[in-house]
Amino acid sequence: MSPIAVQDGKASVNGLQKKSHVTDKVASYLFLHFSGYQAWTLDQIKQYHAPVMSGSIAAGHPEIEYPGIEVTTGPLGQGIANAVGMAIASKQLAATYNREGCKVVDNKIWCFTGDGCLQEGVGQEAISIAGHLGLDSLILIYDNNSVTVDGNIDACFTDDTSAKVRAQGWHVIDVYDGSNDLAGILAALDEAKLVTGKPTFLNIRTVIGHSSTKQNTGSAHGAALGDDDVAHVKRTLGFNPDEKFAIPPKVYEYFAECKPKGAKAEEEWSATMQVYSERYPSEYRELQMRLSGRFADDDWQVRLPKKEDLPAAPQPTRKSSGIVVQALLPTYNSFVAGSADLLESTFVSFKGQVEFQKPESGLGDYSGRQIRFGIREFSMVGLSVGLAAYQKGMFIPVVSTFFMFWLYAAPAARMAALQGLRFIGIGTHDSIGIGEDGPTHQPIELNSYYAALPNLSLCRPADAEEVIGVWQLALSDESADTPSLFALSRQAVPLLEGSDRSKVAKGAYIVYGHDIEPELTIVATGSEVSRAIETAKVLSSTQRVRVVSMPSQKHFDAQSLEYRQSVLPTTKSLVVAIEAWSSYGWTRYAHASCSMHTFGYSAPQEQLYEKFGFKPEHMAGKIDAWVHKWQAESRLPSVGEFDELLLGYAQH
Amino acid sequence: MSPIAVQDGKASVNGLQKKSHVTDKVASYLFLHFSGYQAWTLDQIKQYHAPVMSGSIAAGHPEIEYPGIEVTTGPLGQGIANAVGMAIASKQLAATYNREGCKVVDNKIWCFTGDGCLQEGVGQEAISIAGHLGLDSLILIYDNNSVTVDGNIDACFTDDTSAKVRAQGWHVIDVYDGSNDLAGILAALDEAKLVTGKPTFLNIRTVIGHSSTKQNTGSAHGAALGDDDVAHVKRTLGFNPDEKFAIPPKVYEYFAECKPKGAKAEEEWSATMQVYSERYPSEYRELQMRLSGRFADDDWQVRLPKKEDLPAAPQPTRKSSGIVVQALLPTYNSFVAGSADLLESTFVSFKGQVEFQKPESGLGDYSGRQIRFGIREFSMVGLSVGLAAYQKGMFIPVVSTFFMFWLYAAPAARMAALQGLRFIGIGTHDSIGIGEDGPTHQPIELNSYYAALPNLSLCRPADAEEVIGVWQLALSDESADTPSLFALSRQAVPLLEGSDRSKVAKGAYIVYGHDIEPELTIVATGSEVSRAIETAKVLSSTQRVRVVSMPSQKHFDAQSLEYRQSVLPTTKSLVVAIEAWSSYGWTRYAHASCSMHTFGYSAPQEQLYEKFGFKPEHMAGKIDAWVHKWQAESRLPSVGEFDELLLGYAQH
Repeated sequence: MSPIAVQDGKASVNGLQKKSHVTDKVASYLFLHFSGYQAWTLDQIKQYHAPVMSGSIAAGHPEIEYPGIEVTTGPLGQGIANAVGMAIASKQLAATYNREGCKVVDNKIWCFTGDGCLQEGVGQEAISIAGHLGLDSLILIYDNNSVTVDGNIDACFTDDTSAKVRAQGWHVIDVYDGSNDLAGILAALDEAKLVTGKPTFLNIRTVIGHSSTKQNTGSAHGAALGDDDVAHVKRTLGFNPDEKFAIPPKVYEYFAECKPKGAKAEEEWSATMQVYSERYPSEYRELQMRLSGRFADDDWQVRLPKKEDLPAAPQPTRKSSGIVVQALLPTYNSFVAGSADLLESTFVSFKGQVEFQKPESGLGDYSGRQIRFGIREFSMVGLSVGLAAYQKGMFIPVVSTFFMFWLYAAPAARMAALQGLRFIGIGTHDSIGIGEDGPTHQPIELNSYYAALPNLSLCRPADAEEVIGVWQLALSDESADTPSLFALSRQAVPLLEGSDRSKVAKGAYIVYGHDIEPELTIVATGSEVSRAIETAKVLSSTQRVRVVSMPSQKHFDAQSLEYRQSVLPTTKSLVVAIEAWSSYGWTRYAHASCSMHTFGYSAPQEQLYEKFGFKPEHMAGKIDAWVHKWQAESRLPSVGEFDELLLGYAQH
Repeated sequence: MSPIAVQDGKASVNGLQKKSHVTDKVASYLFLHFSGYQAWTLDQIKQYHAPVMSGSIAAGHPEIEYPGIEVTTGPLGQGIANAVGMAIASKQLAATYNREGCKVVDNKIWCFTGDGCLQEGVGQEAISIAGHLGLDSLILIYDNNSVTVDGNIDACFTDDTSAKVRAQGWHVIDVYDGSNDLAGILAALDEAKLVTGKPTFLNIRTVIGHSSTKQNTGSAHGAALGDDDVAHVKRTLGFNPDEKFAIPPKVYEYFAECKPKGAKAEEEWSATMQVYSERYPSEYRELQMRLSGRFADDDWQVRLPKKEDLPAAPQPTRKSSGIVVQALLPTYNSFVAGSADLLESTFVSFKGQVEFQKPESGLGDYSGRQIRFGIREFSMVGLSVGLAAYQKGMFIPVVSTFFMFWLYAAPAARMAALQGLRFIGIGTHDSIGIGEDGPTHQPIELNSYYAALPNLSLCRPADAEEVIGVWQLALSDESADTPSLFALSRQAVPLLEGSDRSKVAKGAYIVYGHDIEPELTIVATGSEVSRAIETAKVLSSTQRVRVVSMPSQKHFDAQSLEYRQSVLPTTKSLVVAIEAWSSYGWTRYAHASCSMHTFGYSAPQEQLYEKFGFKPEHMAGKIDAWVHKWQAESRLPSVGEFDELLLGYAQH
């Protein structure tokens, strides 16, 4: 069973959830119950907030793992971005696969939002994009009760929201008495379905805690009403105050048509698909493949150039990533690629791409697979989460900005990792190597966040060969539930003799000095690996030196202790790390490091590497002295004796 | 010399910078040159992009360290938030200190913005807040050239910006031909100065790369025009194409009035201050103190309760933080406090506070020191940067949200750390202890970011006594250039017998088992310290166990190796860490850890601690087995042999 045709019905029941306002979440769960989801028994809903690890599915915030929940929400504003991503997915698939007489994709995305999501910047970014793209597949319903945790939003939010959203290209419908004017709401919903060329925003004024003594107050937002007030509400609304969890039969009667309606829709869709399979067999095959979560039914890896065919001259790893983009993205329709205003410098444009734009713009059409996100990093990744969640595996978003600005996007990347939704993140200009843009653009510490984030694969490839390796890893079946982020260099790096794409998945491997028993091992990442090899060459007159490239700490951690010690023999001999980022986390793999200790500077990159101590000759001197110190002690440094060999360089 | 009275003139020349668009930055630097800043010689500006460490001040992005630069900008959108913060600062000081006939604070904030900043969510959040607050001290000038790095913004941004900003309570002035209609621009600037009750937005349509062959294209945004095109521009505009860096004398003549005008303004202000000092001596004294960067002229520490006066019953550390808030904030006017919709649960409200609101709202007035930021974490901290930068040390912003949502705010916190601007950040509900809100709200990995970020003091106090210690540390003179972030518990923790505020500044200290030579040391943070002590008590039947509380890794790193080894004797005996966050970074301090390895769950907190293995009896068993393993080997684990004792618990 595919959700494509029936998602309309499902989404209109379920939609996207907003944070807090407990009754909203319970109400959503109840809708799943009424509309016939077997897992959503009344007993489950009564256990709202019970431990999910004991079998409860009525979690504090809706979680994608449970039936009928299309996306995990909770962190405010992101649900709107997710919905916009889903609306893009729906439009893009329809434009790609629908044929005369065969509408195989035809659904709208219904998203409920509250006051908080509309205050968050990520929600605002997403609204602006959706309006620009004219996404009439999207209907955003604003439960405008004007109350959040701290009380009435008049104290912090006095926008004319309807006017603001209208100014962003939306069709706006106002409902002024959402607590009583049900006919008005229904008319608005009907109108929304017919709007073309624009997304629709329903601004429905409601009363929080309606009919309770706490109505229209902050305490109706987060806290329970209490037994007395619940009884009061029931009396006011004509229910028996002594009955709990009593659902009048007419409610079930009202919802009884949901299941047959859905079954009929699915039946019709299956019939359409049958016709489609006969008339358009290749499109049908591709769609079926994508529905199964695969992006290729051939051996996509053969499209990637062999090492001997890679450019021999040094080039930036961001440019090498472009080789993979050109090799795969034109062919496989699952990929959508875009950037937050850095398409060219992050190398995510591809040959023959069409922009995803409304056709009237003259810039592209809805079959396009290149998205111009604007300078909106957070919602770019939030949209990707929606694209990836629409139908798992149907899309693989490839999204890019400078590595530093993945900090703006981090809360959305976290949600992808939490939900097991794959995207390929490109973060270029990944170090002080960005040069003159200065410390505001030079990531020093950001890797620590992504390294510690569960289920996100942070990779920093050393050269073009490793770039191919990290792409292979990210696109492998093993990574189907894991988003990746590649940290790529602005500056050119040489193609390394010892680099090997097949070893990238191990997280780290020997890249120089295979055939020796090392007295010293240097472990490095990305653009510092070639510097490490140069440093090793200087040191090799006095030491047996190995160099290890470590594109991914997380994948290395997953290897056996035996493998790890065979690569990084920390129990037997000295290991030093070289990376132009903070030393944080390196203490797991090395006895010392050459790393950054302050923010950077605005200066040309080579002068920065020199100033901060990363010139190979300089590092060799520091490492040599450190090696001699420990050789004189005839022991290895213990935990707690980690040395930072460049400490004090270029202190502010 | 104080910048308060003259900031108007200075800011109108300098303002806030937007990213990219090289000519803008160089133009700003030129304005500093023309307006008489001695450091800004023409030679400096010719060296744009030269290494700052070699004495250049014309950095790739403007940096606060250099004369006339009021705030470091670069990461898009944040400059708008900084400007809103400065405008709040100006209004708040004026409302606090101005008296009849003595306008000692009277200035406007002029901020220039480009297309990118208006696409970013943080910029949108800030615009919404400024409109809500009616900040007529703010004038935002939009250089609307409709071109960013990737070309014309019609491809990604088609908002009706004037209508959108107007819907947020701003006075909007449109200038349609900003390239030629200089009179229109001047009239708009004059109009802006007279607007009251609202901030003003000037939407000035301009042409990027005007008169060059690349005008109105993306290549005019970031790349140099080249010699031919520069000559072409000069010819078109009536300059000699063969002269470089030639500035017509009439330009200097035009700007000649800047210095005497500024001097006169300062003279008038000094005279006003003289009168003020006589008529309002206590206000004058306080203002002088704050101008000098101090928030107290008495011993503020005596206001903090002694340990014996702290509540004996267990309480959440967020609540203990509220004790400090109540003890200091009502008294010292330098503090402004606020929250992103979590005033009560983060305990930043204080007695007698007035809300910072426009008086017409009926909710407060501009003398208020409590700010309701709305659910806008990123701009909350961006505003704080502006408040702190307005006049360094004049304000100490105290801002709060759940610890997890400091991820939204991280890019702004980074800018505070980079610029050495102090705020006090409160991050509550700091672990799986948040319970039923589930994994979206349970920070596991976020600490790694803040721990690795240079010049930010991340502290996780164990009890009320340590809470006082981290506040003392954050407010000390040594921290005047350092923002702090406190990770505080939702749940109650006991007041520990061995806790000691005076030792917090060392980063870590012995909290249990002082008088023994330990066979095993447990190091823990925050709400896990009491669990560590319970675990130690279980283990003490077979081992000599010490417990170390480590509220701050960074401050511990700054201690001598001798002190560090005296507290955490990793070279002599086993050390294990207990913290309900990722193990990332713990390898520096311990041989093993009890830590989180996945995202959390939605469940009551105690059941989560149990599920993830953090019950003291359970940890004691795991640690005991681990200790025996190593005692049998008669050696300590080396670097690379770090053990994660709870690995595999509650795997998803």
